[in-house]
Amino acid sequence: MEEEKRRRLDAQLAFILEADQSKNVVRQTYLADASRKENDAEHSWHLALMCMLLAEYSNEPIDVLHTMKMVLIHDLIEIDAGDTYAYDTAGNATKQERERKAADRIFRILPDDQAAQLRGLWDEFEEGLTPEARFANTLDKVQPLLLNDASGGRSWLEHDVRAESVLARNCRTPEGSEILWERAKSLIEKNTANGTLKE
Amino acid sequence: MEEEKRRRLDAQLAFILEADQSKNVVRQTYLADASRKENDAEHSWHLALMCMLLAEYSNEPIDVLHTMKMVLIHDLIEIDAGDTYAYDTAGNATKQERERKAADRIFRILPDDQAAQLRGLWDEFEEGLTPEARFANTLDKVQPLLLNDASGGRSWLEHDVRAESVLARNCRTPEGSEILWERAKSLIEKNTANGTLKE
Repeated sequence: MEEEKRRRLDAQLAFILEADQSKNVVRQTYLADASRKENDAEHSWHLALMCMLLAEYSNEPIDVLHTMKMVLIHDLIEIDAGDTYAYDTAGNATKQERERKAADRIFRILPDDQAAQLRGLWDEFEEGLTPEARFANTLDKVQPLLLNDASGGRSWLEHDVRAESVLARNCRTPEGSEILWERAKSLIEKNTANGTLKE
Repeated sequence: MEEEKRRRLDAQLAFILEADQSKNVVRQTYLADASRKENDAEHSWHLALMCMLLAEYSNEPIDVLHTMKMVLIHDLIEIDAGDTYAYDTAGNATKQERERKAADRIFRILPDDQAAQLRGLWDEFEEGLTPEARFANTLDKVQPLLLNDASGGRSWLEHDVRAESVLARNCRTPEGSEILWERAKSLIEKNTANGTLKE
């Protein structure tokens, strides 16, 4: 194998091993069975599976492969930046800067063409201005709602989360899929009615 | 929402919550940092990421989306059938029957069209007769080799695995990618030379 090709594969494999650390970035959402919190790798797999099965509910036609790539890589920056809990005000004030720095380091482990491709996918996800990014962001919001409901709202209860905070955080969720948002909203209403989410 | 559409979404979401159990199916491979064993959801996410970044090394041209779907769902049957360790002879004698039964139950949670699609993807992966299935199977073999090497061969050492067993298990790995196999083989040789794999 010639030297240049060998170096390309070295860089790709180094990135793939770096990405392994996503399995240790713990989120605040519990698994459906409430046994433990999920991590970024598991969450990203779950979003890719949802993308594959629920693409028909996107408000706009989407390129499924492009959307799937976006959800697979959208949380890699948390290897450096950590998971910022949705309702952590102080953490969210510094989130953007920490995540940008992380993106600058992590994606650059790859060969230049793939570094640019993945940085582009991450920027697109963060900006949320394409049909694919809108649908990816909607999945990213709906998945924890499904798990929170299935786990009896364990994460909401531990953090004393209020229904209006969940609704405010989801103000853009309908932009990716009205149908999935309608279903997610019914879960929020159910958990408000039974007291799992504070009024 | 009309009744038929509501039932379709109900079935899809039930499947997506069922799939959550993959996060609790523990494999024998350790994470790169050797801190703990990885689970099926993490492994499947890692394969999808590898598929996205390493497709250029497939021996034959592949449909990346199709391959990605295959790796995302290939281990769901282990929710019922459990993970069978590669070098567990007794477990491997009953593996096929257990996995077929699991596939019959799990994919049928989905609406009929998607149940047939996912069953088709799983059968294709198991048969390994298409370019996409060959590449997916190669990734499925190369990923644990990368993690075993990175983790100092912890899983190999715990099971007293011999180099010739690893080579035999990988007899078809070059069919998906000669280039990735060449690299994986060099890791096997390195770990044989340093005594991590028994001669």
